[in-house]
Amino acid sequence: MNITPTNIRWLSSCCMMVGLYASSGAWANEILATVTSPGKVLSVTVQRASDGRLAYEVQRKGKQLIAPSRLGFLLSNAPPLDSGFSLDSQKVTSHDDTWEQPWGERRYVRSRYRELRVDVVQKDKLSRRLAIVFRVFDDGIGFRYEFPAQPQLAEVKITDELTEFVVAPPATAWWQQAGEVWALEYPVQKSRLDEVGMANTPMTIRTNDGTHIAFHEAALVDYASMWLRKVEGQKLRANLAPSAFGPPVQRQAPFTTPWRTMQIADSAPGLYMSDLILNLNEPNRLGDVSWVKPSKFVGVWWEMHLEKSSWGSGERHGATTKNTRRYIDFAAKHGFRGVLVEGWNLGWDGNWSGSGSEFSFTKAYPDFDLEGLAAYAAKKGVRLIGHHETGGNVARYEKEMDAGYQLYARLGVDSIKSGYVTDAGAAVYTGPDGSTHFGYTDSQEGVRHFQKAVTEAARYKIAIDTHEPVKDTGLRRTYPNWLTREGARGMEYNAWGNPINSVDHEANLIFTRMLSGPMDYTPGILSLEGVKGRPINSTQAKQLASFVVIYSPIVMAADLIENYEKYPGPFQFIKDVPTDWADTLVINGEMGEFATIARKDRNSENWYVGAVTDGSARTLDLPLSFLDPQRSYTAEIYRDGDKADYRNAHRFDIVIEKKQVRASDTLKLRLAPGGGQAIRLAPAPY
Amino acid sequence: MNITPTNIRWLSSCCMMVGLYASSGAWANEILATVTSPGKVLSVTVQRASDGRLAYEVQRKGKQLIAPSRLGFLLSNAPPLDSGFSLDSQKVTSHDDTWEQPWGERRYVRSRYRELRVDVVQKDKLSRRLAIVFRVFDDGIGFRYEFPAQPQLAEVKITDELTEFVVAPPATAWWQQAGEVWALEYPVQKSRLDEVGMANTPMTIRTNDGTHIAFHEAALVDYASMWLRKVEGQKLRANLAPSAFGPPVQRQAPFTTPWRTMQIADSAPGLYMSDLILNLNEPNRLGDVSWVKPSKFVGVWWEMHLEKSSWGSGERHGATTKNTRRYIDFAAKHGFRGVLVEGWNLGWDGNWSGSGSEFSFTKAYPDFDLEGLAAYAAKKGVRLIGHHETGGNVARYEKEMDAGYQLYARLGVDSIKSGYVTDAGAAVYTGPDGSTHFGYTDSQEGVRHFQKAVTEAARYKIAIDTHEPVKDTGLRRTYPNWLTREGARGMEYNAWGNPINSVDHEANLIFTRMLSGPMDYTPGILSLEGVKGRPINSTQAKQLASFVVIYSPIVMAADLIENYEKYPGPFQFIKDVPTDWADTLVINGEMGEFATIARKDRNSENWYVGAVTDGSARTLDLPLSFLDPQRSYTAEIYRDGDKADYRNAHRFDIVIEKKQVRASDTLKLRLAPGGGQAIRLAPAPY
Repeated sequence: MNITPTNIRWLSSCCMMVGLYASSGAWANEILATVTSPGKVLSVTVQRASDGRLAYEVQRKGKQLIAPSRLGFLLSNAPPLDSGFSLDSQKVTSHDDTWEQPWGERRYVRSRYRELRVDVVQKDKLSRRLAIVFRVFDDGIGFRYEFPAQPQLAEVKITDELTEFVVAPPATAWWQQAGEVWALEYPVQKSRLDEVGMANTPMTIRTNDGTHIAFHEAALVDYASMWLRKVEGQKLRANLAPSAFGPPVQRQAPFTTPWRTMQIADSAPGLYMSDLILNLNEPNRLGDVSWVKPSKFVGVWWEMHLEKSSWGSGERHGATTKNTRRYIDFAAKHGFRGVLVEGWNLGWDGNWSGSGSEFSFTKAYPDFDLEGLAAYAAKKGVRLIGHHETGGNVARYEKEMDAGYQLYARLGVDSIKSGYVTDAGAAVYTGPDGSTHFGYTDSQEGVRHFQKAVTEAARYKIAIDTHEPVKDTGLRRTYPNWLTREGARGMEYNAWGNPINSVDHEANLIFTRMLSGPMDYTPGILSLEGVKGRPINSTQAKQLASFVVIYSPIVMAADLIENYEKYPGPFQFIKDVPTDWADTLVINGEMGEFATIARKDRNSENWYVGAVTDGSARTLDLPLSFLDPQRSYTAEIYRDGDKADYRNAHRFDIVIEKKQVRASDTLKLRLAPGGGQAIRLAPAPY
Repeated sequence: MNITPTNIRWLSSCCMMVGLYASSGAWANEILATVTSPGKVLSVTVQRASDGRLAYEVQRKGKQLIAPSRLGFLLSNAPPLDSGFSLDSQKVTSHDDTWEQPWGERRYVRSRYRELRVDVVQKDKLSRRLAIVFRVFDDGIGFRYEFPAQPQLAEVKITDELTEFVVAPPATAWWQQAGEVWALEYPVQKSRLDEVGMANTPMTIRTNDGTHIAFHEAALVDYASMWLRKVEGQKLRANLAPSAFGPPVQRQAPFTTPWRTMQIADSAPGLYMSDLILNLNEPNRLGDVSWVKPSKFVGVWWEMHLEKSSWGSGERHGATTKNTRRYIDFAAKHGFRGVLVEGWNLGWDGNWSGSGSEFSFTKAYPDFDLEGLAAYAAKKGVRLIGHHETGGNVARYEKEMDAGYQLYARLGVDSIKSGYVTDAGAAVYTGPDGSTHFGYTDSQEGVRHFQKAVTEAARYKIAIDTHEPVKDTGLRRTYPNWLTREGARGMEYNAWGNPINSVDHEANLIFTRMLSGPMDYTPGILSLEGVKGRPINSTQAKQLASFVVIYSPIVMAADLIENYEKYPGPFQFIKDVPTDWADTLVINGEMGEFATIARKDRNSENWYVGAVTDGSARTLDLPLSFLDPQRSYTAEIYRDGDKADYRNAHRFDIVIEKKQVRASDTLKLRLAPGGGQAIRLAPAPY
């Protein structure tokens, strides 16, 4: 009456896999390996179930945060890599180094973690190997899979990545839908974590004991973007963005997956202070990148969104030589480095549902003298910022890109805003056989393209600002010419959005989208209105604060010239505020409610502070302890007026005042409903 | 300052699609067409948004039940079929006919509906056409897409079906996870609808006003299975099961998709009374199917699950000639038509993780005399039931299937239980180029295979009972030799499950899984115990009731011979109960709590009643108004004893008694905790 191996196998195939993974099936796992963060805040164990499935578990300060969560893959060209694993070896190593950013939120970044490498092998006829590498910091965790070179799995076609995240304590989530080409521009929504459907990343949660976790990924290279799909309860699973070419991921081994990341902190500010995503990316591969210039720009753009002029040609054409000269003159006068001009090139007219097949990257409209304007700008100490609207036609853009870069490089244009408005509803790719494929921009093929666009641009010393991009996963560290991107609802939604951006939009962005990297948010709409004068959910002071709280190394002051001329007071802050920082401190903040961020200019001793709130008025303390205690500072304060309120005409009420302050002082920041505050702190000379 | 077409296009691409489909964006849609069910219970409108997206809305009794919900597709080989649509034509037709089932829950089925056909065309350069056809019954709705033959879309590769189901009133869901090869064997869970992750179908919900909806699909042919993925709130979207060959669906036009179905009723019993799924399937294509024999069987099976014998060879081998003769004798003695024998064939020994590559479909183990046993059975008036365990290796099975069918046909075996225990964790398929692919059983390729296995079997007049199958979508109407299938947690989980089946399992199954069609549930475990004597969550009376409430035209009385011999009283009901019905009435029931079903034998004037409850004791009224008022009936009642309780040894307490009853009587059914009741009602002769 003994059980034979066959019986055990049969039973295990029938019931073990179901019993263990369905609903609340208890894990009774063998611990394969453990690693603890340098400061002993976080610990990870890698576990093995009786059928050889792998899982990891995360504890924080001795409490379970991530319950045992599955690891593995389903493949379309080979049996699953999901069970039957045995430990081959494990190794823990310690790392602590500090590296310098060419530009960024802070100049020096410390990377201090312990790494656990677990090599496993499937005990069956194929004996396939896989490694999982965990890097455990005090403020978060990254882990990735390594597919080694092995003849029995040379080509890897991944149907499903089975990586799960089972959050142990009940939690609230701030999340965006995934699963649409345009999903990165969906609003952030707040719900119970167990009400999340399929989310993009970063997705931030707060557990009932106040622990904050941001789920994301780092170093997304030649792989599909990861969405997070709810399985049941608080169990989420990686859902790889579909490919138009077959399984979501097709690679030749050896290769590594992107890092699956969890930034973990006691507070929302703690999340933002984490450099986990950058630390998990590879160092700069471009060498000297002094040609990448953080800076501000203005341009022919908001006027089209306001329907005052058009992208297309004709008498309403915005991108005319005359209009552009006006912006160049304005930029020169006020110290902006760049002038963006959209709609300069052939292809904007008629029905461009042919998926961007009409856009030229080299031919200007006759009323736009590209060469002359480039020369005029240079004479004025200004540069044109290039614009490549691809219409989402990656196939065509990859053919034309080089000519476009060459032209711009010859004219001294050293940064390009690229656009992927997939008018056809999908991005267009070319297969190896020349066939046309339609798909997501966050597919493996999309990921490849965006990286190619950036690395090809680097050959011409051109920096890229991608709109309608794949999400940011910290690749700016490796390719510092990937300056910024859109990838969320920008200011343009305040022109024509239905609805426009909500009053808590910035407070949501800071602790969700902004955890991934810079955003070209195009702040500074001092007119506080969109199309047909529809008011936006902001005060003037909040517009200024956005230059500090929404980080981007290249920032558009987006409003019309006449509006900046109308409001010279607040405009002064926009002129003053830099876009490259020596350091960044998040003073306070709560998910979706408010945030105060202080940043130190990288090229002076000045500090800048921005504070934003949602629809609620707030008074926040700003201890100035970050200032040099040896010096006195002049604080130039741009604050909401006493009656300021985003809901009425007092949204324009702004008070600009100066105070002398020291590090021992604490300022009270009084934020109006929908308001904000911006402060420039300049030390008195020694 | 007029808006140019280009501008409108740009704005619409940027904002309209986001505004309309994100979060609570209000639809202000043009109504393209409307159709109302014959009894005016349900109505459907098809709508068009300003960007030409299509949606449908469902009202029941004048109240919105399904809010505007998206229709359309993303394709990998062509631009999306999701917007830019205009109405080409619409047409409403009425249908009312009654058809006869060769076997089933009821002999005659009425199909009464109004059909709305909407032909739409995309107003762009491609002018592609699509049709959506709604069939609106009083008890539910089916709709499907028709891809017409058109040169500009001859080959259709579907990345995503965008069909959505936005449930308007707050609702509770009874659902099973989808997204695993084994998901059909996951437990049913109950949660708020907005907590559903990705569900299989049928998924049943109950709105806060008591309306019940079962979401499912009908006529799943050459297409991927539909899972339902939560988008946000109560919005679900079709999620096509991934293919191992590329996009989830690849078809040549013209073709139609499966029907997306909603059975809709005021109560759980109302759902079960609906014939929507069958009505949406094509009529019988096999002609005379008198060779398909509803019947009961016993067999060499439960003893392996109890670890009393083994599937593999050796001294514990269950499928021996001697043991099988014992079952044949038992079947003959007690009137069972069939004897199933698992483990009769070569391939069960050793490590069969080679994905079923060792199973023979023609070669018996030496200790199993297949030919002699078939002859012995025939002599006794019994038939062997064939068994084909494929190990999920579809590729190999499709090569060997014919030889297996031939052998069985020659030996008079006219039904086969097939198994797809994907020991490798995935089904194995062969590509057109001979390459091996691994994937889901509910993929398009899996769907194709299961249908092929059934239609090929029909050539040999063999009926199929599929285990580890694709879900049932009513194809038994078209292929009546597809007798039954597993596709849920069967009794076997009570042998070795971790956990075993919950006490509310039957009450869940009836109003979820059983809405899709018959299930080979293998009831009748009078010993009430699994491996090592572990008790199951049932009384003896509930085991008997399961023969009535869990419908299958071919039913295994699954317990060991010695247990039936030990309990001759309750065994009598198992011997009496038929498996083919003239009519079925659901007397009462609540989701996951209890159900009482009365069925009339197709071959006599007898009625059979089964009632089951969850862990709660209940007293239910059974009005006998379904009986012939002209006649008196003997009720043979198998009820829980007064102390009966599934939680203790009184689970064996059963009272068997007779009563004379008439149609005007109402019986009180007293169900113990975890109990049930079974009744046979036989009329006195005229």
